[in-house]
Amino acid sequence: MDKLFFMNDYGEGAHPLVMQRLMETNLEHTCGYGMDAYSLRAADVIRKKIGKPDAAVHMMTGGTSANMIALAAFMRPYEAVVAAASGHINVHETGAVEASGHKVLPAESRDGKVLPEGVRAVCALHTDEHMVHPRVLYISQATEVGTVYSLNELKALREVCDECGLILFVDGARLGSALMSRECDMTLADLANLADCFYIGGTKNGLLFGEAMVIVNPALQKDFRYMIKNRGGMMAKGRLCGVMFLAALEHDDYFAWARHANAMADIIRAGMERGGVPFFQRTTTNQVFPIVTLEQEKALAERFAFERWGLLDGGRVAIRFVTSWATTEADAAALAAALEAMRA
Amino acid sequence: MDKLFFMNDYGEGAHPLVMQRLMETNLEHTCGYGMDAYSLRAADVIRKKIGKPDAAVHMMTGGTSANMIALAAFMRPYEAVVAAASGHINVHETGAVEASGHKVLPAESRDGKVLPEGVRAVCALHTDEHMVHPRVLYISQATEVGTVYSLNELKALREVCDECGLILFVDGARLGSALMSRECDMTLADLANLADCFYIGGTKNGLLFGEAMVIVNPALQKDFRYMIKNRGGMMAKGRLCGVMFLAALEHDDYFAWARHANAMADIIRAGMERGGVPFFQRTTTNQVFPIVTLEQEKALAERFAFERWGLLDGGRVAIRFVTSWATTEADAAALAAALEAMRA
Amino acid sequence: MDKLFFMNDYGEGAHPLVMQRLMETNLEHTCGYGMDAYSLRAADVIRKKIGKPDAAVHMMTGGTSANMIALAAFMRPYEAVVAAASGHINVHETGAVEASGHKVLPAESRDGKVLPEGVRAVCALHTDEHMVHPRVLYISQATEVGTVYSLNELKALREVCDECGLILFVDGARLGSALMSRECDMTLADLANLADCFYIGGTKNGLLFGEAMVIVNPALQKDFRYMIKNRGGMMAKGRLCGVMFLAALEHDDYFAWARHANAMADIIRAGMERGGVPFFQRTTTNQVFPIVTLEQEKALAERFAFERWGLLDGGRVAIRFVTSWATTEADAAALAAALEAMRA
Amino acid sequence: MDKLFFMNDYGEGAHPLVMQRLMETNLEHTCGYGMDAYSLRAADVIRKKIGKPDAAVHMMTGGTSANMIALAAFMRPYEAVVAAASGHINVHETGAVEASGHKVLPAESRDGKVLPEGVRAVCALHTDEHMVHPRVLYISQATEVGTVYSLNELKALREVCDECGLILFVDGARLGSALMSRECDMTLADLANLADCFYIGGTKNGLLFGEAMVIVNPALQKDFRYMIKNRGGMMAKGRLCGVMFLAALEHDDYFAWARHANAMADIIRAGMERGGVPFFQRTTTNQVFPIVTLEQEKALAERFAFERWGLLDGGRVAIRFVTSWATTEADAAALAAALEAMRA
Repeated sequence: MDKLFFMNDYGEGAHPLVMQRLMETNLEHTCGYGMDAYSLRAADVIRKKIGKPDAAVHMMTGGTSANMIALAAFMRPYEAVVAAASGHINVHETGAVEASGHKVLPAESRDGKVLPEGVRAVCALHTDEHMVHPRVLYISQATEVGTVYSLNELKALREVCDECGLILFVDGARLGSALMSRECDMTLADLANLADCFYIGGTKNGLLFGEAMVIVNPALQKDFRYMIKNRGGMMAKGRLCGVMFLAALEHDDYFAWARHANAMADIIRAGMERGGVPFFQRTTTNQVFPIVTLEQEKALAERFAFERWGLLDGGRVAIRFVTSWATTEADAAALAAALEAMRA
Repeated sequence: MDKLFFMNDYGEGAHPLVMQRLMETNLEHTCGYGMDAYSLRAADVIRKKIGKPDAAVHMMTGGTSANMIALAAFMRPYEAVVAAASGHINVHETGAVEASGHKVLPAESRDGKVLPEGVRAVCALHTDEHMVHPRVLYISQATEVGTVYSLNELKALREVCDECGLILFVDGARLGSALMSRECDMTLADLANLADCFYIGGTKNGLLFGEAMVIVNPALQKDFRYMIKNRGGMMAKGRLCGVMFLAALEHDDYFAWARHANAMADIIRAGMERGGVPFFQRTTTNQVFPIVTLEQEKALAERFAFERWGLLDGGRVAIRFVTSWATTEADAAALAAALEAMRA
Repeated sequence: MDKLFFMNDYGEGAHPLVMQRLMETNLEHTCGYGMDAYSLRAADVIRKKIGKPDAAVHMMTGGTSANMIALAAFMRPYEAVVAAASGHINVHETGAVEASGHKVLPAESRDGKVLPEGVRAVCALHTDEHMVHPRVLYISQATEVGTVYSLNELKALREVCDECGLILFVDGARLGSALMSRECDMTLADLANLADCFYIGGTKNGLLFGEAMVIVNPALQKDFRYMIKNRGGMMAKGRLCGVMFLAALEHDDYFAWARHANAMADIIRAGMERGGVPFFQRTTTNQVFPIVTLEQEKALAERFAFERWGLLDGGRVAIRFVTSWATTEADAAALAAALEAMRA
Repeated sequence: MDKLFFMNDYGEGAHPLVMQRLMETNLEHTCGYGMDAYSLRAADVIRKKIGKPDAAVHMMTGGTSANMIALAAFMRPYEAVVAAASGHINVHETGAVEASGHKVLPAESRDGKVLPEGVRAVCALHTDEHMVHPRVLYISQATEVGTVYSLNELKALREVCDECGLILFVDGARLGSALMSRECDMTLADLANLADCFYIGGTKNGLLFGEAMVIVNPALQKDFRYMIKNRGGMMAKGRLCGVMFLAALEHDDYFAWARHANAMADIIRAGMERGGVPFFQRTTTNQVFPIVTLEQEKALAERFAFERWGLLDGGRVAIRFVTSWATTEADAAALAAALEAMRA
């Protein structure tokens, strides 16, 4: 009776393993504000995984909070962050970055991915003190439209950052899905080698909430806990994130969950291909973007929960299906069949 | 082997009932960002309890975030908030209110409670556009030092707010303990009648996290969700707070938990009285503040986890014990006995 | 020997009449911070000129300060200002608007002028609390590229503002030149009827500095002096602006100076037309934008001071000549002749 | 018929020498925004005077603007500035520092002067990331109540700054009067040796407006022009400050004017002493604070313009007379005689 759920990946709860750990540890007494043993161990696990013993790791409560706090920490008042026009910080954070006093400078992008020459162009335009000074390059891996930067693409951005004096900051709200994508040729360690700072998103991959901020560059680490508290992002029961990230990362379940989500999306994509349903955006992660007619959209909406992404011309729409650790093969197959059946 | 835990009330997990509801609902699909049925029902329960069908209710992630967002929403840039010098916003939020652009004006207080004449004095001093304009009176119920405003005291503050054109905002991080205190003569409904806005603290009374913001005054309700998002306080899985507050408030368990915490503190206070241990601050809520010698502090610290509150003269210190829904009678009795035994 | 000066209109001093008044009043004692008789009289003169006895008039120290203070006064934290991508607040104020916490949303424009459909498109995209809320439409009259909104164009923008709930704010840094342009069909009173707030720019038209902010909409007037002081824009010797604006506006000299500047620019434009020099942007105000070759630019630069506006393809550049109250007919004629002589 | 003017030192115009230079240079063409030859020469003159060839000098438009921009430039978001409770930034700038996101922490002071132990106490209290981090010590020379730090007092503050990791910032709105005070034992060079940053106030000593910010510490100099523009403090006709400061400082007239102001205040103080009129605050600068009865205040107010400073008990008031470069000996003598005549 209920519709099959492909609305988003944060409409799910936490993975049962995560819930179990929260239950098991619920009656323990710990110190607050993220200084507990679980948070410290989770941080250690991350540092080991990326081979950066000096990285600073902080547990954040959510994506917008993580973005706005990191950017506010890294920039002086007149400095600006370069991002894709479609970037989450530019569109979907209700001006949180500007509320911290900083301009977002849109750079040319393709398939949701910022282009090195786009960054260069923005920097070339901002030459004197009558304009903001570009200081951070913000990208997300995966991007807003579910695409993935390749290792070479990331290296090219690192280069342009070095050239222009930019910090490279990577929003990893969907980092699991990106890294587990079959087209992805980079590891978590690669990311840590190239980015000054990134985070591992928990909210959209198996946790109740939480993003693990990893500040690789020592020059950016100073007093970050002050910044978290100053912007209302420090949880009293900080151990929650610690417990959850430890559960997710200790034995790499986090990546298995993401791989599963991608596999479910692959099933849907295969259905589309068999049905000849065009892609609004080709992806290999947990977001799938078909183009359908208004009638097809209506028919799909009777059985499946999903989101309209945009109105196209010719009575067509782009729609979005999102999978997660919780998506079942049966559900994915049902959706794939429905899409395949659209073949005229 | 472990010390008995009286360090704070946020070092505990959630009440088992809350965890159970989180488990039961974990695999449900809901919409995000606090628009789910649980959050809406929790809001309804609160509106009914206070008899204010038009109150706006929002689920916030924590106390500092709740304070900073509400204050930023209610004030124009040159406006300031009046508070006790010891107020949480003035001391323990790393300048979150100032980071939103607003000055905190300390007013005279006694026993942690802002005095009406203190508010009047601040307002009388701020007379023209070369000074900030006082706009909000911030108090907390219970206060930082565990004391409780009486109904008459709150009415007197309401009066001074009306007189001076101030919004009355009540930080309710420990509201449960305050309302359930044996000296408290006000109800939740009284509070809602007198305050323009207040919140019901979950973090320190049985939830994993979360404060339920209640904006009674319609003039202050506009676009509050924009403000939450703009400051990074909107949770993707907003239903978590909804589920938890519903569990806590539906059948008034929230108040039972607070009553329990207070009863445990009463046991400790009784032990102090029998032992002639002086109070740094007399309270009837879940915080107890004995004055002990440095030696006594050391001895207590071997068996009990607690915090030093402040160094006094004469080799004495004020220390703090905090109880919660999770404190057992046995633990409280053990601490009471230890305090009683201090009698010279 | 010195180059003839067409670099900008703020590279000039004040009109001798203004200097004379400053000298005459220099030894008077007045009260400070803009409450003196000169500032009050200047405000009265402006209110009379626009037929708005209830308009609030404030003397501001400069354009960026005027823009940032007005916008900060008019918006709540999550609200945004719509502007041409080329708008001064979007490009040339080093993020002053963002430093006040607000996003600038670029809208489609043509010839530097924001298009009503561009504003509608921006508003249509910003539909919920995950995005900023458009609240102000910022335009400048004349625009950054010296073009002028017609009365009908301004009316169309007023309409879209009413439709979308936007405040119409007009940056008048070059308002004199705009209103005195031969293609301009609106009066100062028309502007006051259509805009919620605008300012009369003094810095670029005969004063040492100063912009007279006119807040027509009573809903926007509250506590504006607090805002000025809160952002460091209140001058101790506020009378300076009062004296200067009174001198400029009392007998409409301000408009005569602007008319002169435009006439000088007309001379230059006539030279261009005779010489067949193409316009990068057609204007009727005090800025002239020829397209020349790199060689021509070099030749001109030997005798004239001006600015390069942008590099075009084919070895050509757009350059900018700016006239002012101080530009002499001889200088304008010399430049016109040089441009005319470029005819191949 | 007009009252003799002792209301304040910014109710005066500019010294005739300054006006003359403005007239002489009015028709020159210069580049804008403070990069003109006058501003550069004024900066050179200052660097030479203080023997700091690497100091950065910037012309600011006024005191509040200077304070808020410097403090915003020097601090990260969670950092705070320590000041006397009576400090201008804490009371009379409408929250400009907080509008930049920073808390002002009041420290114990005596005679308007911050005490080293007061600074130490504030720093000792702020120990972790739940509180703001003290980063700057703000003092003003002369203080709000006209007193002057001695060289030893300043050295003691420098010491505590070094001890606590604080930047020493000196508001010099009345620096001329302070340095020329007969009790002052420090030179401008001493100040530059001890402070990380200070400014030389022009508004209250002979200029139309303007404060010359001197950033001695190279670590604080980076991108200061960006900060000025970002906060609306950069003047298009920046040369105005350059011309005025050059006029004032080139041949040390600035100090002569201040010496004159102090001498006029000495005449008034002598009258008070002869008349046995008590001092609310003993000073040697250009502010004089007698205590008079309400009747005496009324009588004085018939002939002299001055300000009431505060209501005391016993029907008495503290009043304030301020002298300036423009105060005549005749006026000072008239006031002195009136005060002397108060002898019972």
